[in-house]
Amino acid sequence: MVSTLTTREACVQADAADALASFRERFSLPQGIIYLDGNSLGALPKAAGERARDVIDREWGTDLIASWNTNDWFDLPVRIGAKLAKLLGGETGACVATDTTSINVFKALGAALEIQRERHPERRVIVSERENFPTDLYMVEGMIEFLDRGYELRLIDDSLTAEQAIGDDTAVVLLTQVNYRSGRQWNVNELTALAHERGALIIWDLCHSAGAVPIALDEARADFAVGCTYKYLNGGPGSPAFIWVAERHVSRARQPLSGWWGHKSPFEMAVSFEPVDGARRFLTGTQPIISLATMEVGLDIALEVDEQALREKSLALTSLFIELVESRIAGDALTLITPREASERGSHVSFVHAEGFSVMKALIARGVIGDYREPGVLRFGVTPLYLGYADIWDAVEALRLVLETEEWKAPEFQVRGAVT
Amino acid sequence: MVSTLTTREACVQADAADALASFRERFSLPQGIIYLDGNSLGALPKAAGERARDVIDREWGTDLIASWNTNDWFDLPVRIGAKLAKLLGGETGACVATDTTSINVFKALGAALEIQRERHPERRVIVSERENFPTDLYMVEGMIEFLDRGYELRLIDDSLTAEQAIGDDTAVVLLTQVNYRSGRQWNVNELTALAHERGALIIWDLCHSAGAVPIALDEARADFAVGCTYKYLNGGPGSPAFIWVAERHVSRARQPLSGWWGHKSPFEMAVSFEPVDGARRFLTGTQPIISLATMEVGLDIALEVDEQALREKSLALTSLFIELVESRIAGDALTLITPREASERGSHVSFVHAEGFSVMKALIARGVIGDYREPGVLRFGVTPLYLGYADIWDAVEALRLVLETEEWKAPEFQVRGAVT
Repeated sequence: MVSTLTTREACVQADAADALASFRERFSLPQGIIYLDGNSLGALPKAAGERARDVIDREWGTDLIASWNTNDWFDLPVRIGAKLAKLLGGETGACVATDTTSINVFKALGAALEIQRERHPERRVIVSERENFPTDLYMVEGMIEFLDRGYELRLIDDSLTAEQAIGDDTAVVLLTQVNYRSGRQWNVNELTALAHERGALIIWDLCHSAGAVPIALDEARADFAVGCTYKYLNGGPGSPAFIWVAERHVSRARQPLSGWWGHKSPFEMAVSFEPVDGARRFLTGTQPIISLATMEVGLDIALEVDEQALREKSLALTSLFIELVESRIAGDALTLITPREASERGSHVSFVHAEGFSVMKALIARGVIGDYREPGVLRFGVTPLYLGYADIWDAVEALRLVLETEEWKAPEFQVRGAVT
Repeated sequence: MVSTLTTREACVQADAADALASFRERFSLPQGIIYLDGNSLGALPKAAGERARDVIDREWGTDLIASWNTNDWFDLPVRIGAKLAKLLGGETGACVATDTTSINVFKALGAALEIQRERHPERRVIVSERENFPTDLYMVEGMIEFLDRGYELRLIDDSLTAEQAIGDDTAVVLLTQVNYRSGRQWNVNELTALAHERGALIIWDLCHSAGAVPIALDEARADFAVGCTYKYLNGGPGSPAFIWVAERHVSRARQPLSGWWGHKSPFEMAVSFEPVDGARRFLTGTQPIISLATMEVGLDIALEVDEQALREKSLALTSLFIELVESRIAGDALTLITPREASERGSHVSFVHAEGFSVMKALIARGVIGDYREPGVLRFGVTPLYLGYADIWDAVEALRLVLETEEWKAPEFQVRGAVT
């Protein structure tokens, strides 16, 4: 995909012709900033505030306890989960919106290990990748130590390919589709097939892909998936995450966090746990209803968008970003770490700069909000629903000025600490 | 504590003299109902809606990603946790507001078992009680099955006292201070001492006591505590729960859900998990900020109240409820299952009726909202911050009419399903 946008005017024209441009009106964004951090915290949908107000004033304040039934609170995780399953191309599977990604990793891994204990009791290896978002690795590590049953974590890295790492000793594979730092994308279909060929189950972390790239969990025959809703799905800060389980595993999958929300008859108050059939068995306790209900607003917008059109615009924008940086910014201070090949990347673009921390602080001071990740990574989230071509032009121009004028060397941008 | 309120007029006068009466103005309650279900879902503090609006419109919508630092999102679980520790008389311990009670039971139990594996590696018994809220038992059951290391759950019940159940084979005791059904209260100091005498650690579930009865975790030398914030603390539907850990255990306590929020340096993106010192190590993943921040409003109100004055009013109201039912309602259709002895009960009163489900539906139709719990339990939550003596009079009068006129026999109250 080669862009032909070599002037700001051409970018403005591309925005005028953009079929997705009207989605921008659905979001509330502050004046004068270009927000390139929607892959960390998505923007506020204008309708979210009203939804939260209704949940608080009417559902909580007026309907009170009856809301668990009359306002559907009890079914919210499942009802929203079904929408997520549709978005993820996994309609045959079970999905609930609940808890955090980390906790859902624990549930998925716990359920997958239990399945494998029956199928391949001797397998003790869990494969992930060194570059995975750390919490996934930490959750595996915590489980391995806690179980104390001889499991080990094997990491794909520069010296060990997926082909080499996933073997006939592998119980479970845990990979993140789009890498949080580089934006590199695994081929979900190929890796799932590889895992299955070796007799392993695979869990996909979709944090940086849900709402950003087309996903087809059913088609890929994925086993489990988890992810968050506060990035490209614009669900709000810390909005509940999701867990998806393939239909063929649902009835046998027992997850270790077996709380009353996963019980067959939670209000019979039985002494023993018996998991309910279907998606609810991946729930544990009472969910944060205000955050959960508000999240649905962003998800509903995502469901209106044609995912192929979204992907095309995303790639056009990320391609444009790369081209403009490389054609308009002199010198070699910036090193692209995101794949140039469109099919290999998600929806963000990252460059390493030796003084990346200070560069990002200076850029933010110019109203271009990107993210910084150790070590030295300038990360630019490209969210097609509320960004246009001229935004990308302007962002790269700001980056050019920060570097050419060396304003990032100013003392106020040298103070370490939080970048934003 | 004997009440002398034998007329509605005397109740109205008692309300006029009530030093806590003004707290009622802090809550938004619908006209014409008496809400006796605040022990299931607390009422809406009037200031909660504005707090949520500010979080959504300004913090999320305008400040966006910077809010993790500038609006304190990152520290919210710890900052609110410190307030909870104060409320629970556990200021020397570590406390965070996070996740759900069920998940915090898992963390506390996991950490306690790990500590006991070093101290008493042969101990395999976890003691709880048959009448405990089921999710506590389900979480223990899930952990026992998952660990598959020979742990067993032993339940205190009519045929096995705590003295008998907690022995030198006991690793951990998990009890709920105030029983969700009967309102019976354990003596936290005595049971904690008993557990320690037998070499066990104790986890207290404070769901039905936090904000309702005085709690002194430090004084009792409790080991762990968990609980929810959406009952007497009026935090909102499903607002995040808490976990408290005694200071002497914090540095050695490793909990199995070791996500990035509990890491020593979460933004260094290290491959290996290293727990941070202090309360944060009981965090796992990104918290639902809108629900969490909104919850603080109810907690702040609770912190304004003198806990002894609250307890006195609570006991005066529950005593009045019992007396009025027994003096004004003829026949023996209602059986009190809550202790008459004030020191033995929490802040709700429960009666069994053979047709309790239909009675509660009829009562709700009269605008008196109580709760129904199997089998046959009419449960009345008495929340001293927004209930007065005349409310109790009117509620009992409504109950009297429902029973005397037998209106609960009407067909519309026979339909099973949700009671509210």
